[in-house]
Amino acid sequence: MVSTLKKVDALKQRAFKEGIDGFLIFNSANLIYLTGFSGASALLIPKNDESIVYVYGVNYAHAKAELSGFMVELVKRGENLMAKIAKQAAAFKIEKLAVDALNIESWRALAKSLGGEKMLAADNSFIRELRKVKDEKEIELMRKAAELTSEGMRIAYETVALGVREYEVAAEIEYAMRKRGSSGPAFETIVASGPCSAYPHGGCSDREIREGDLVIVDVGATYKFYRSDMTRTLVAGKPSEKQKKLYQTVKTAQDKAFEAIKPNAKAKDVDAVARKIIADAGYGEYFVHNLGHGVGLEVHEPPTLSPESKEVLAAGNVVTVEPGIYLVGYGGVRIEDTILVQKNGAQKLTNGPYALGEE
Amino acid sequence: MVSTLKKVDALKQRAFKEGIDGFLIFNSANLIYLTGFSGASALLIPKNDESIVYVYGVNYAHAKAELSGFMVELVKRGENLMAKIAKQAAAFKIEKLAVDALNIESWRALAKSLGGEKMLAADNSFIRELRKVKDEKEIELMRKAAELTSEGMRIAYETVALGVREYEVAAEIEYAMRKRGSSGPAFETIVASGPCSAYPHGGCSDREIREGDLVIVDVGATYKFYRSDMTRTLVAGKPSEKQKKLYQTVKTAQDKAFEAIKPNAKAKDVDAVARKIIADAGYGEYFVHNLGHGVGLEVHEPPTLSPESKEVLAAGNVVTVEPGIYLVGYGGVRIEDTILVQKNGAQKLTNGPYALGEE
Repeated sequence: MVSTLKKVDALKQRAFKEGIDGFLIFNSANLIYLTGFSGASALLIPKNDESIVYVYGVNYAHAKAELSGFMVELVKRGENLMAKIAKQAAAFKIEKLAVDALNIESWRALAKSLGGEKMLAADNSFIRELRKVKDEKEIELMRKAAELTSEGMRIAYETVALGVREYEVAAEIEYAMRKRGSSGPAFETIVASGPCSAYPHGGCSDREIREGDLVIVDVGATYKFYRSDMTRTLVAGKPSEKQKKLYQTVKTAQDKAFEAIKPNAKAKDVDAVARKIIADAGYGEYFVHNLGHGVGLEVHEPPTLSPESKEVLAAGNVVTVEPGIYLVGYGGVRIEDTILVQKNGAQKLTNGPYALGEE
Repeated sequence: MVSTLKKVDALKQRAFKEGIDGFLIFNSANLIYLTGFSGASALLIPKNDESIVYVYGVNYAHAKAELSGFMVELVKRGENLMAKIAKQAAAFKIEKLAVDALNIESWRALAKSLGGEKMLAADNSFIRELRKVKDEKEIELMRKAAELTSEGMRIAYETVALGVREYEVAAEIEYAMRKRGSSGPAFETIVASGPCSAYPHGGCSDREIREGDLVIVDVGATYKFYRSDMTRTLVAGKPSEKQKKLYQTVKTAQDKAFEAIKPNAKAKDVDAVARKIIADAGYGEYFVHNLGHGVGLEVHEPPTLSPESKEVLAAGNVVTVEPGIYLVGYGGVRIEDTILVQKNGAQKLTNGPYALGEE
């Protein structure tokens, strides 16, 4: 179990400066981030006392064995979690309790237990800000996730062939990653061939890959909760001139956007670099999604690279860069890597060939 | 694409009887349930007009191709989804809009767009009630998911051996299911050996399986969005007398609870059957979780089989029955099948041997 207490301290320092004297965490990725443990139901962080992890019976023994630096509190059968937390918050004399994420029904239950909404603040921004900047240990895990992902992609290049079904390719990719230690796909693997490749999230069906198909392979491994994300586009057989042109446009857009990534770069400017190259080639309206997104404990997290993004990049951010062109009825091309922002620029964590097909 | 319009109609009939004249869906499993499509961001169901599916650009072409019987509305870049929905709700003259699931921040944004909370009702119960009873088509998909799961378990029996690592067993199981058409694990596969088997959710590590280890294998396949769930416990080598006793207790508890499942049975009574057998054998305090849970589009959904459950079983429910005994420092035993409640009793959808080890 990795010590995550530094992260709890960092959260305290940020949040408690702003008049908050307690933090309550429910989001599962946030719970893993702050405790390193995946079986917690809630985490109460008071200003001066030890933090409390709430777990149900099914995870209690495991939590006691794994967690250090936290009090572990069993939520007993029939006990009301919100009422239990409210009682503890009162014991801690918390006056302003920030909550990272709750659905409206649970929010109301918690407010009721607390005697009203007045001491509650909905706030996910502190912790999202923290999670955007990965520390050394996190980067090490993300490198490993990216390495497993790259290995999966290598298998994709070996497997994509005429007559092979999309899900068979996905099976080989996932098996290769899993055998090497991945805990599972970071998201549902996409192998989208022929007309399906025109849908950015077109999943794996039992379609057989045919001569001349564009095949988009979008894959990610999870390693010790951290994720990675990578896409390549292949052609089964010899690419046509049109396919080569589409591919080269997307490749140039990815290259130039990658070069634009560095600390203090505006996310929307990085997006604009890729978007302009695709628009100048006449495909502007067919690039139907954002340039990229942050990756970490979740496969989509801040910072987002989009025309509307207000984010400014910083060393320790990990983002995807994934321009694409999608021609409905014809097919699509996307190229994506997971990229670490570093002090002096950026580094691709995923690695693999960019070959489109037989040249 | 399966037609899901009957489900939308069923929801309308239930909800609109109770003074609600619009329904707004955000939960991803609910969206798949009602549209059959996984790329929707929201679904607005008015009383008399056609329902509207909201999608972002990344999924728009796919939604237009796949969805029939719904209007597909593009959420444009920079557009505010909540404001867009509020405007449409006003155009439909909706007076009471039920919402299935929203976090507090989105709830407030929606309420603001609507001019206050007064026309909003948080209600997930209608749709959860509907989802509890599977129709013929859903049962067909769940049978297929269970068949893939059983095949995965067959591979587990072939793979568990001295010196094999936990995650290697998981890799073989998942590969077998995926190659036969599963879209992925229904949840993170558990292969927990030796002392780790005492943690009900103890995941797969790189621990090597050793002589005499209890090994819990908990696995599920997903097939066209529907899930299944199955557990067996194996011993690497020859089981000890203590292991046999633990195993036989859990097996009897599972058998008897299975026999108690039928329409109109109270969920808490089914739980009690298994709990009593384990308690009578002296292990009551070591059965640290509920007897079971509903399965469908989500791996945990209603109805729950627990001492606190108020549910009454009905034909078309699909539930797990999974008693267990967990001795910290020693190991654990759990046996689980996915079970369909039928008019005249119940049927196991998962199938596989119950052998503990070499006899």
